[in-house]
Order: sequence, then structure tokens, then C-alpha cells
Amino acid sequence: MESADLSLPKLSHWPLHIVSENNFPTAAGLASSAAGFAALVRAIADLYVLPHDPSFLSRIARQGSGSACRSMFGGYVSWEMGVEEDGSDSLAQQVAPASHWPEMRAAILVVSAAKKGVSSTAGMQATVATSELFSQRAAHVVPLRVTRMKAAIRERDFATFAEITMKDSNQFHAVCLDTSPPIFYLNDISRGLIRLVEELNRVAGKLVAAYTFDAGPNAVIYYLEDNKEWVMALLKTCFEGVPGLEDVQGKGLGEEFNIWLVKAVFGGVSRVILTGVGDGPEKVEDKSLIDEFGNPKSVAL
Amino acid sequence: MESADLSLPKLSHWPLHIVSENNFPTAAGLASSAAGFAALVRAIADLYVLPHDPSFLSRIARQGSGSACRSMFGGYVSWEMGVEEDGSDSLAQQVAPASHWPEMRAAILVVSAAKKGVSSTAGMQATVATSELFSQRAAHVVPLRVTRMKAAIRERDFATFAEITMKDSNQFHAVCLDTSPPIFYLNDISRGLIRLVEELNRVAGKLVAAYTFDAGPNAVIYYLEDNKEWVMALLKTCFEGVPGLEDVQGKGLGEEFNIWLVKAVFGGVSRVILTGVGDGPEKVEDKSLIDEFGNPKSVAL
Repeated sequence: MESADLSLPKLSHWPLHIVSENNFPTAAGLASSAAGFAALVRAIADLYVLPHDPSFLSRIARQGSGSACRSMFGGYVSWEMGVEEDGSDSLAQQVAPASHWPEMRAAILVVSAAKKGVSSTAGMQATVATSELFSQRAAHVVPLRVTRMKAAIRERDFATFAEITMKDSNQFHAVCLDTSPPIFYLNDISRGLIRLVEELNRVAGKLVAAYTFDAGPNAVIYYLEDNKEWVMALLKTCFEGVPGLEDVQGKGLGEEFNIWLVKAVFGGVSRVILTGVGDGPEKVEDKSLIDEFGNPKSVAL
Repeated sequence: MESADLSLPKLSHWPLHIVSENNFPTAAGLASSAAGFAALVRAIADLYVLPHDPSFLSRIARQGSGSACRSMFGGYVSWEMGVEEDGSDSLAQQVAPASHWPEMRAAILVVSAAKKGVSSTAGMQATVATSELFSQRAAHVVPLRVTRMKAAIRERDFATFAEITMKDSNQFHAVCLDTSPPIFYLNDISRGLIRLVEELNRVAGKLVAAYTFDAGPNAVIYYLEDNKEWVMALLKTCFEGVPGLEDVQGKGLGEEFNIWLVKAVFGGVSRVILTGVGDGPEKVEDKSLIDEFGNPKSVAL
């Protein structure tokens, strides 16, 4: 039996050499750990030929980072809170695949890649424990907004999508501020970016862009491909020369745009990442992060 | 009858020449208009020998600036909201005279004397209309806190006074942020000052200071005379050379204080006003703001 074990070892007895690379600023409130853990869980599932059902893998991924459960799916994803007190039945579900509304774009404005002062997990625990407004948000505001948001995605209704996105970002940061001691993720540049998006929508005469901020000062601006020119004009006017905007064509904003708002964010954005709705983790055969000697290597991402 | 009217005119037919001077930064969210309107109403009441009941004058003063109703009183004052839909029965009441707890001090840190982006009245109307957390605050949180705060003042309980002061300041700014579009009064310096006061309390091992921010970025720090050394050490360490601190004696903070928090507010405070609990508007006989020719003159305040 011993020799048989040696000649045919169980795969699960082998140690794993894992190399991970991330092209996103880490620990900056941009869900880089969610992306990393989703990729890790999917890679291990591939290695051991485990079932690929994203709901199953989602439960595993969220043990590494709560929001990693969302990142197992592509497209538009909802993180359902479940009914169990301990959150054990909390899981992510796809609302719609990327192909349902492929025109959705996101511009990520990296305000600061500095580490967060408060981890998002510890911060949320403090908010739940001490904010006297949190229960109102959790019990009454969020459930209605989630229902409306799912309907907006199903109907490809950008105006409603944008309105809820902005309101809910602000309310999340409001309950952070209502925490004892208060938690601040937004800074003066973040607030300047909010004002810029509001001004853009005012000048456009409709909602062409929506801001949202996670547990950090960096902005994500959602927009539809149809309104790309508006957002690119904004970025070009405010952040000319910032890495990530090299290929942006087109002209700046018109005279009616309040130039003081532009000056308020000058120099406050270090990088722009232009992306869009896409699929979940993908297996890439030809881009190993381990070289032929077993050492880590970097790949151009 | 005509000649009788000319020789003995009714006082109320005479126009008034009013000169007002304010030693507080105006339109900066520091209730300068409340102080001004309270002084104006009291001066006119003196002129016409009207009843001096502060509750009566308070109703008149609040027509100029809502918070002016509080400023008619000295000491510790509560602004009661009343039960009428239109706020017509909203009035201020004295919780305790200054002599009940005369040890209360306030350091006002003027972060920026720039005009507010949003008037506090317009801002509050927008918050009531659009914040989905405001009703929870108004109906459930504030009434309990007001009751606890009055008890804390009656019992001269600084720890409770400080806890409620800080929590309620944060929650006020939270519902401002939950407004659509969001209202920002705090800036990065304000947030830095919050962190400084938290650090001071941590190093002191008890609540020696409490911050609060009204509709602007400027901080008011409350402390008791007994803990003056702690607050003066903080101010001296952070704001040496800033106008208003010329007479502050004593040493800086110890080594255990996190120096990075000090650096975060460096250069962000332009003036410090050291004051304390006091009486309401006072008639000053010897300091007229009108000279013998009827022209305005300035008095050293």
C-alpha cells in the first residue's frame, strides 16, 4: 500500500505554489481582494476539476473577502444577505449577464493608492454596532433600492440606475460618518469629483454619468457607451496627462461648465482605469504566472 | 391736531439708524447671524422699553435667523421644535443658566472664513425633503439625545455631554451627506480635527474634549476649565503662531500623541477663538457704535 501511495499520490496531498498578480491598486477600497480571491477560487476549482457552478464557488470565495462572492459571476450581480443571523446563507446571484446590457462602462479614478485607514470589514462591523441610522438603512432603504436597481438593470434604464447608484453611495458614506468614532472614506478630492459629475449631468441636461465610492476615496463613474463623449470630455478637461487617458480623443467641456469645479480636483487623481461590464474569472491558458523553473514571473496585463 | 403730532411724534414713526458690528467670521457656519439678530432684537426691545421676557423676544429673533431664538438666552439653551406643522410654536428655552455650570469652555477653530457653499437654511430644507435617513434621526434619535443632554447639563456630566455632542455632530453631517445632491460642510481639515480630539481623549484616558461642527468646516471644541491644560497642549502643538493663541501658556503634547494627526491639519486653521459659556445679549452703555455726528464707528470688541 505504501508503494502504491508513493507512485499514485492523492492530488490533495500536494502543496500548492500560488502566484497572484493584480493590476488594481490594492487595499485602496477598489475591491482588489475580491478580484484576487475570485480568481484564486476559480483557479483551484479548475485544478481539482471541481464543479464550476458560480453559486457554489461564490460561497467559498466570500470566506476570503466578502465581496469576492460577487466577483465569481460576470455581468450584473446582486449580493443577497440571506436570513441567517450569522450570514451563512448570504450569497451572490447574477441579475443579468454582461450581454444583456453590454453598453455599460466604468471609469475608475484613483484618487490615492494609499492604504485605507480602516479596513472595510472592520469599518462595517463598527457601523452596524454604533450607527443609530444603520438599522433604518438596512431594514427600509436598501431592500427597496435593490428591488428598483434590479428592475433598472432588466429594463436597461440608466437614469434610475444612476440615481440609485449615487444616492446609495452617499448613504453608505453617511452611515460611516454616523459611526462612533466616525469613519471617513471620502476626502476633499472625492467630494470634488461628486460635484463634477453633478455639473456634467446638469450641463448635459440628463443623467449621463453616475458616481459611486466604495470603502476609499477613489471614484467609479458609470456611463453608457452612447454618452462616452460627455465623460471623456470631463476626464480630458480635468485630468489631461494622467496615466490611463493616453488614448482618449475628443474635445474638452464647453464654456457653460463651471471651471471652478475642475480646479478643485486639480492634481488629485493619479490614474484613470477605463473599463466596462464584463465576464467573471476566465481561465487563460497562455499566461502562466510561474516560469519553467517554478519561479513567479510577471505577465503584461 | 397736526401741530400736536409734529411736536410730539410717536416714537414708532421715527426711522431707526442701526449699526451692527460682529467679531465672528460671518456666513461661515458659526451662527454669526444668530448672534447679530439676537443683539438687534434685544437693542430694539430696550429702545422701545418692550418686555424683556426672553421667550417673547426669542420668537421675534428667530424670524431673522432660526438659531437666533437660542441666542436670546444665556447659559445652556434648548431649541424646542414644537408640535405645529409650520414651526410657529418652535421656541428656545433655557436649560440652565451659565452660573449652573460655569466651567464650560469652547475653543472655536476657524478652518476657513470662506462663504458656505450652501446656506444652512436651504441645506436643511433639502435634507428634510430628500434624505431617507432624516426621519429616523428626527423621530427617534434626536428626542432621546435631547433628553439625555438636558440631564447631562443638570448633572454637570461632561462625559455624557461630550459623547452626545460628538455623535450628534457626526449624525447631522451624515444626513447632510444623505441629501440629494449631497451637502458637504466638513472638509479634510475638519476630519483631521475630529481625529485630533479623539487622539487627545485616548491619550488623556478620558473624555477631556468634545468636537462639534455646525453648517461649515469650523470646529467648536468644548472642554471644562479643569481639563484646560489638555486642550491648550493640543492647540499649542498643532497651531502655534495662529492668531488667538498668543496668551496660551504651557507645554505641548507628550510623545505618545500620534504626530501624524498633527501634520494632517498643519496650516489648516487660520484663527482660534477661546471663549466659554456666558450670558445672553447685554446692554453696554459706554460702547455706542454711532459717533456724535450719527456716523457708524467701530469699537474694540
